[in-house]
Amino acid sequence: MRPSGRAADQLRPVTLTRHYTRHAEGSVLVAFGDTKVLCTASVLDKVPPHKRGSGEGWVTAEYGMLPRSTNTRSDREAARGKQSGRTQEIQRLIGRSLRSVFDLSALGEYTLQLDCDVLQADGGTRTASITGAFVAAYDAVSTMLEKGQIATSPVRDFVAAVSVGIANGVPVLDLDYIEDSACDTDMNVVMTGQGGFVELQGTAEGTPFSRDEMNAMMQLAEHGIAQLVQAQRQALGL
Amino acid sequence: MRPSGRAADQLRPVTLTRHYTRHAEGSVLVAFGDTKVLCTASVLDKVPPHKRGSGEGWVTAEYGMLPRSTNTRSDREAARGKQSGRTQEIQRLIGRSLRSVFDLSALGEYTLQLDCDVLQADGGTRTASITGAFVAAYDAVSTMLEKGQIATSPVRDFVAAVSVGIANGVPVLDLDYIEDSACDTDMNVVMTGQGGFVELQGTAEGTPFSRDEMNAMMQLAEHGIAQLVQAQRQALGL
Amino acid sequence: MRPSGRAADQLRPVTLTRHYTRHAEGSVLVAFGDTKVLCTASVLDKVPPHKRGSGEGWVTAEYGMLPRSTNTRSDREAARGKQSGRTQEIQRLIGRSLRSVFDLSALGEYTLQLDCDVLQADGGTRTASITGAFVAAYDAVSTMLEKGQIATSPVRDFVAAVSVGIANGVPVLDLDYIEDSACDTDMNVVMTGQGGFVELQGTAEGTPFSRDEMNAMMQLAEHGIAQLVQAQRQALGL
Amino acid sequence: MRPSGRAADQLRPVTLTRHYTRHAEGSVLVAFGDTKVLCTASVLDKVPPHKRGSGEGWVTAEYGMLPRSTNTRSDREAARGKQSGRTQEIQRLIGRSLRSVFDLSALGEYTLQLDCDVLQADGGTRTASITGAFVAAYDAVSTMLEKGQIATSPVRDFVAAVSVGIANGVPVLDLDYIEDSACDTDMNVVMTGQGGFVELQGTAEGTPFSRDEMNAMMQLAEHGIAQLVQAQRQALGL
Amino acid sequence: MRPSGRAADQLRPVTLTRHYTRHAEGSVLVAFGDTKVLCTASVLDKVPPHKRGSGEGWVTAEYGMLPRSTNTRSDREAARGKQSGRTQEIQRLIGRSLRSVFDLSALGEYTLQLDCDVLQADGGTRTASITGAFVAAYDAVSTMLEKGQIATSPVRDFVAAVSVGIANGVPVLDLDYIEDSACDTDMNVVMTGQGGFVELQGTAEGTPFSRDEMNAMMQLAEHGIAQLVQAQRQALGL
Amino acid sequence: MRPSGRAADQLRPVTLTRHYTRHAEGSVLVAFGDTKVLCTASVLDKVPPHKRGSGEGWVTAEYGMLPRSTNTRSDREAARGKQSGRTQEIQRLIGRSLRSVFDLSALGEYTLQLDCDVLQADGGTRTASITGAFVAAYDAVSTMLEKGQIATSPVRDFVAAVSVGIANGVPVLDLDYIEDSACDTDMNVVMTGQGGFVELQGTAEGTPFSRDEMNAMMQLAEHGIAQLVQAQRQALGL
Repeated sequence: MRPSGRAADQLRPVTLTRHYTRHAEGSVLVAFGDTKVLCTASVLDKVPPHKRGSGEGWVTAEYGMLPRSTNTRSDREAARGKQSGRTQEIQRLIGRSLRSVFDLSALGEYTLQLDCDVLQADGGTRTASITGAFVAAYDAVSTMLEKGQIATSPVRDFVAAVSVGIANGVPVLDLDYIEDSACDTDMNVVMTGQGGFVELQGTAEGTPFSRDEMNAMMQLAEHGIAQLVQAQRQALGL
Repeated sequence: MRPSGRAADQLRPVTLTRHYTRHAEGSVLVAFGDTKVLCTASVLDKVPPHKRGSGEGWVTAEYGMLPRSTNTRSDREAARGKQSGRTQEIQRLIGRSLRSVFDLSALGEYTLQLDCDVLQADGGTRTASITGAFVAAYDAVSTMLEKGQIATSPVRDFVAAVSVGIANGVPVLDLDYIEDSACDTDMNVVMTGQGGFVELQGTAEGTPFSRDEMNAMMQLAEHGIAQLVQAQRQALGL
Repeated sequence: MRPSGRAADQLRPVTLTRHYTRHAEGSVLVAFGDTKVLCTASVLDKVPPHKRGSGEGWVTAEYGMLPRSTNTRSDREAARGKQSGRTQEIQRLIGRSLRSVFDLSALGEYTLQLDCDVLQADGGTRTASITGAFVAAYDAVSTMLEKGQIATSPVRDFVAAVSVGIANGVPVLDLDYIEDSACDTDMNVVMTGQGGFVELQGTAEGTPFSRDEMNAMMQLAEHGIAQLVQAQRQALGL
Repeated sequence: MRPSGRAADQLRPVTLTRHYTRHAEGSVLVAFGDTKVLCTASVLDKVPPHKRGSGEGWVTAEYGMLPRSTNTRSDREAARGKQSGRTQEIQRLIGRSLRSVFDLSALGEYTLQLDCDVLQADGGTRTASITGAFVAAYDAVSTMLEKGQIATSPVRDFVAAVSVGIANGVPVLDLDYIEDSACDTDMNVVMTGQGGFVELQGTAEGTPFSRDEMNAMMQLAEHGIAQLVQAQRQALGL
Repeated sequence: MRPSGRAADQLRPVTLTRHYTRHAEGSVLVAFGDTKVLCTASVLDKVPPHKRGSGEGWVTAEYGMLPRSTNTRSDREAARGKQSGRTQEIQRLIGRSLRSVFDLSALGEYTLQLDCDVLQADGGTRTASITGAFVAAYDAVSTMLEKGQIATSPVRDFVAAVSVGIANGVPVLDLDYIEDSACDTDMNVVMTGQGGFVELQGTAEGTPFSRDEMNAMMQLAEHGIAQLVQAQRQALGL
Repeated sequence: MRPSGRAADQLRPVTLTRHYTRHAEGSVLVAFGDTKVLCTASVLDKVPPHKRGSGEGWVTAEYGMLPRSTNTRSDREAARGKQSGRTQEIQRLIGRSLRSVFDLSALGEYTLQLDCDVLQADGGTRTASITGAFVAAYDAVSTMLEKGQIATSPVRDFVAAVSVGIANGVPVLDLDYIEDSACDTDMNVVMTGQGGFVELQGTAEGTPFSRDEMNAMMQLAEHGIAQLVQAQRQALGL
């Protein structure tokens, strides 16, 4: 029995609220149960140095947690004067995940800047961020098409993410904070709408895991991602 | 005629949503029209060095804007590695304002840490922050009383804030972003529930202002603060 | 009776020593009693990004305290690796105050960089800085006119600053360190030579202040500023 | 055909040179072909705050690249004033990997500090670092046993790491820089001597990868790790 | 002929003004011609970690230049967020020079903190700083003796510094900025009152220098230092 | 008798291993006894701002110590976020020393970037760095000549460095760590192949030194440098 009473292959309730704030070209509040992340997508009329003059665009992400999004207050990174290693690791992951479904040459010399800010954390903030950021990015791209900034959509596929793990010896899907803290293995899986893997990050915090457990976790991930992509489609009315 | 169609002495619609997130001892989403700030109050079982062993507590605040809370995206301060002068100025103001109604000796050796994070900005983020932070602080104090961490409430009065200014030669209350950008003078006023002034910060960006204009602005501020304190009372059910 | 023996509406002795150091286009040692600040004005042949190509110039300020300008030694900000919130707040105030009397379009694409460094502190360092910086800026402008860098003076008015407060229940002018530490309310007022207000920053550290006290303080400020502008005129031989 | 002429399942020549420098308790130069990393293990008589008084020790790692270890010179991180996100990601991975085979309670309140500095890079610096750091850590533990700092060895198993990937559609083992730059998928795998997985980090830079490709890569990884653990045994004379 | 018209072995006019500011235990304005440095000595009731519990004190120094002490404005180090390599080099030199004449065990567990801030620069700021800092330190020690913080003076000798160089092939004493910019060799020499060398830092910016030139420069330095120590004696009334 | 058993005027065994790593245009491992420094010279197709458009090149250096190159582990400067004053002082010295034998106008608009990283330290790391960096720079220049980047060599002379000191009252050459820690005076001397002095940095940590001791140390330095230049010639096959 999982602490939340969920079945081993059951996601938490997922909601994707578009147009959550009004300034960004895309703005989505994503909830995976009690984990709530505000994902905005901004269209910037510039590209980083390594893309200048290339005719190609760029997709990148930043991530942050509000100081009291967590159970005990964390230091504010802006006040401490630097982002933690964990923060950088997560924002690099979000950026790579989104780029995997973007055709940068169709984006033109624009940057799609994603900002994922955790309002409330209960495990799985990076997987919720990726799942929500895709919807925000999609909305931003629609704005670009409407404005005539680009002629065709650079979005080649959906992308979503979910965590899987081994808790009390059992493979489970979409861990919340309590399960995550106690589990032996935690793996974040990022997949496309067509079912290809784009990122896989697994860590055994306790007992190492076996090939069989690996296979079981990947099956759960495929199952979960399919539902998340379905939720993205519904939110976008596709 | 003001850009928003409001009367010169009219506030924007004010809402104070308590328990907006679940981890913090106090968590309030305050809206002054389209300006939306999440204010959390955290009870920390420690005090800064200058209060250690004094038997007194401390009240302090930090402030931040999500990168795309504004019309054009601002750099993330955590990524830039430092808080701007504006940010530090605002969080110092919030801290002083809240401390003005706290009896630190009744707080015990605890810190009440306020975090004001702007989700959406449309002018007046610092005044909304102070007004919302008071409600979050009040809730956190209630939690402390319930847990028996303190015996009597350290809250001596209400505190709220509003901006006033001279726009097109006319004194106006609670400026939104459009008015703020174009006005000659912008003044932030912080007052207690009993009508005393605790902070006054006025800047003439265009034509200097006169004693008469000053008096007119202060009258507007008194009028606005009275309504804000009333909104705080209602939100708290007092 | 004030600690210094002064009358409630009496300034400390004010001196403005021009050409205090030899490299800067303007260099003034300002003393408000025992508070001594070296104000230099440098003419830089460049403007910040937001002014490039605009044909307009910029006026900005930086502020610092020598580590042992104070009674107990403060950390050197350069060694600590950042400027405090207080320092940034003050230098932003000095910059805004000076800009309020400058016609930036008459300045051409030059930056007037003010540096206010406190050699000895006894309260009122920010008001002395503004008052002295104006004289240094005026001298720098004269140099620019002599060199033909500009055709007409961009200086539209005088600007000076003074603190007022409520100490032991009595409104007083130009607080020194002892009074400042003990007073209920401290307000910094920046005014033009023609008597308009450009900045007002009041804080009640103890009891909140009333509208009547506010009026009394503003009257004292007007009285003090008039004398300071007179001192500036004399120093400049105008 | 791979650029290096190796078979798909062939490692580069691996050498592990112990006692490479003389001050550290463990000092190993590890070479995976042209990738050369100096791994030192230092025994520190202190633990981080979260372990103080726990009776347990800690194992942690830092990573760096000499500026000209790479084909074109990279900025020195000490001169730039911060470690890149990539560096932090790698040093966190090395630390977690080593901790997975350590019994921290048998280590006593000591920190085993690993430093992995890349002298020459040709792909796979993080996997070489983990493989070499284990040998350095083992030597440092032997020193602790000799000195009587600990009574029994906290080392529970071997740990080593290797990269696998899909290059030109073919699963390959231990990618060098040329292959790594051009491949579709790159995965770093960390395993224990007994064949359990402790870390898995896979990224599809081009085409997403399938479950079948995933399986093929894991088989290659198992094959490679077995050889690396054998090399560790030989180097340690076990 | 030197640019200043001085003889090759002639110092610039030297003045040492004690009690220049009022808060510090020692406060000296030293002038070497147009080079003017404010040197303060602060007595701190603490020592750095490596001296705690040793019964010994510490002497250390910090150095800074006001942004417009130089001909063209330099960036403010506090604003840039770090001290330059040059600044650190100089403050380390001042600290070592002063420590060379202090008996740290007679100082007790106090720190004598020297601050040398350049108000106006014309070459030789580091030698003026050392020469002035000694007088400030001596005054601070007198204060400590008066207050009974220490029983006997820890000052064992005088210490002063001067620059020598080869300009246009001729060995010269006490270079000003013009000479310093154009000379082949610049050497800073720190000596005690009894004529021992404590620091020597020579750099050939153009042609390397010979043993003979070295000897000539050292003779000039001895000559100059004797006069500077004499000026220190007179300033201190010894 | 010296701790190492060497005669007073005897160097430690010196080795200069060229082509130590493969990416840099020049790469030399220099050993002065147990002090081992990897010196690389990189040819960069850019110059710092003050040389742009001048037709001249630049030679500069950075220095670092691996955390466990020393007897007890030092903090990693990249992790601490800044280079120490000592590091900056040393890398500035290396840069100046190398520039002293370079004709920057013959180098063209290239930067020769030297990186000196200490793998193992036993005193004299800065003198070994300079001596090794010259050989690496020479190799890099040869590469530039071969590639036709420059037409004639900008190298005008050899440059090498050695330490001398007064230990137990006796002048000695090339101090190792034990001697360096205990000596009264330590002086680093940089000379050209033709016997000119380019840098001299002497510090009396205990008793000040006399003119006679100075002369004795300089004689030892000349003797040592001659041997080091001979070792450079042999390593380069000149």
